[in-house]
Amino acid sequence: MNRSTGYTAAGVDIDAANNTKAAISAAVESTYNAQVLAGMGAFGGLFDAAPLAASERPVLVASTDGVGTKTIVAAQLDDWHGIGQDLVNHCINDILVQGAEPLFFLDYVAAAKLEERRVVAVVEGIATACRAAGCALLGGETAEMPGVYRDGQLDVAGTIVGAVERARVIDGSAIATGDAIVALPSTGLHTNGYSLARSVLGGLDWQAARSDLGGVSIGAALLAIHRSYLQELRQMRADGIAIHGLAHITGGGVVENLPRVLRPGLGATIERGSWSEPPIFGLIQRHGTIEDAEMFRVFNMGLGFLVVVAPEDAGRVAGGSIVGSITEDHDQVRITPGTAS
Amino acid sequence: MNRSTGYTAAGVDIDAANNTKAAISAAVESTYNAQVLAGMGAFGGLFDAAPLAASERPVLVASTDGVGTKTIVAAQLDDWHGIGQDLVNHCINDILVQGAEPLFFLDYVAAAKLEERRVVAVVEGIATACRAAGCALLGGETAEMPGVYRDGQLDVAGTIVGAVERARVIDGSAIATGDAIVALPSTGLHTNGYSLARSVLGGLDWQAARSDLGGVSIGAALLAIHRSYLQELRQMRADGIAIHGLAHITGGGVVENLPRVLRPGLGATIERGSWSEPPIFGLIQRHGTIEDAEMFRVFNMGLGFLVVVAPEDAGRVAGGSIVGSITEDHDQVRITPGTAS
Repeated sequence: MNRSTGYTAAGVDIDAANNTKAAISAAVESTYNAQVLAGMGAFGGLFDAAPLAASERPVLVASTDGVGTKTIVAAQLDDWHGIGQDLVNHCINDILVQGAEPLFFLDYVAAAKLEERRVVAVVEGIATACRAAGCALLGGETAEMPGVYRDGQLDVAGTIVGAVERARVIDGSAIATGDAIVALPSTGLHTNGYSLARSVLGGLDWQAARSDLGGVSIGAALLAIHRSYLQELRQMRADGIAIHGLAHITGGGVVENLPRVLRPGLGATIERGSWSEPPIFGLIQRHGTIEDAEMFRVFNMGLGFLVVVAPEDAGRVAGGSIVGSITEDHDQVRITPGTAS
Repeated sequence: MNRSTGYTAAGVDIDAANNTKAAISAAVESTYNAQVLAGMGAFGGLFDAAPLAASERPVLVASTDGVGTKTIVAAQLDDWHGIGQDLVNHCINDILVQGAEPLFFLDYVAAAKLEERRVVAVVEGIATACRAAGCALLGGETAEMPGVYRDGQLDVAGTIVGAVERARVIDGSAIATGDAIVALPSTGLHTNGYSLARSVLGGLDWQAARSDLGGVSIGAALLAIHRSYLQELRQMRADGIAIHGLAHITGGGVVENLPRVLRPGLGATIERGSWSEPPIFGLIQRHGTIEDAEMFRVFNMGLGFLVVVAPEDAGRVAGGSIVGSITEDHDQVRITPGTAS
């Protein structure tokens, strides 16, 4: 596949767009594997599904997502190196919760005016995260839309397609009362809650190193890259851990995301203090005088990805903290009072 | 799959976003077929690939695209019914050129503020086009991003995933000198050239019916829905026509898109006057005093989708006009002088 054609651009200045496309080709092609049928086509990306067809009962799992207004923080700090990784990792985690391994990714980058340096940085970040996951960056689109986007801003969205054996789809149906909830830590806000965070922290210095953030600046803490939990999931499978359910904690926080995998009648208790909360959350809460309930509804609060397992397996999840358990609490996720640790 | 969860929203007002999500569920679910594994998951959409696995050597074909600044025209006329169909049909055509049938689609709709009425109209349009193509609307994302989008504007992007037998991938390698080029007509600009069109036509009345547009208004002509050529392609296959190559005429026009499927050394001659050009192009050209070469580089000029076949098959392409032939003209697409017909 010729990326310079597969990666179409809808803009006024077609020549300038073509230059940007050429500049990102190397990054894109670095993600290609044997399943990408290079040179076979020009309009859409081609992916050899023969290995997939060899599996018992393959299910494709797909998800589209963006990174919210984290792009505004990137624009403000003129630091675009992480946004592409945020995007891909968010999408990987979204299909990971159903047990799927990523196959390929497609991106959409749009702005009032495409600035080559920015687009290249974003696509390089996308390619970096794709390579790390063994996921091909199969296609993409850059769009120049003056009149739709604000000057100096940029939006990015992406679509991931993965696969899982039907018998291995994780849907939470194995979750039972008394199961342990193990949290894999987040690096910070990931890609949610940026509107509130920006509003609360707007008046502070974002560049200065802060002792209450462990020596990093607000800007760096806000741009901490959304983690992918793919390696942890692969390790759990390799260790033979029976995964009852998974939840990626995104917009809506643990109180809205964990119930998505709980069948009716089940609830959960999360014990605050049992995991480490990145200090950026405390800073936002103090400066915004925000109630705990609201914090847990907007932010992941350090709970990046939840793994539900039988109690006897809880200690076997590498890198995880046992943060709670499944109850018969009818769709309620209760956070027990406690202090951030 | 629970669309109200699969369709995540990144916005400040999570409750309002949830209402919008509920409102579009019916449209989305109207696209589901037996391959959509409803209820199995909550984060990503699940699609049963077992039928695919039953084929000889399946290849997945994927493409991401937007509709350019046609969204600004929709905003100006407050008419969003066609934008979703534009988006899906554009994507369908992009994978159709490689011989792929659509399997599923995912959308991304973003604005400074999500207006329920607009989002519902757009997603209903997406669902309408998906249903017509037998394509499942497997997932999507709505994002509210004040500060990134201009007030009153909206952007929409989508990703299509389709499949084709590897032996049936159409890549233009069968194209030979002397082959006929058959055009399937476009309905108008489809989704390209809107920045130029809006700039040139900005001072005119967009609401009034015009005799030089066959009795429709400029607004209606500009919002004419991007056609899908899926049924025509299915008919050609049913008729046993050997398709040598296909080209979807998008940004860059026939001069940039046809060469994407021509191997080095081949060119094409297109005879102007041999097809019907929608009158909106003549209006734009006259009011903007735009040269022919520029018109053919920005707009499809009525050539929506090109089919390259052996000369003896040219008359068998239902609904098509023979507009030219393949030459040894080294990557050049020449438009012979002539008048628009």
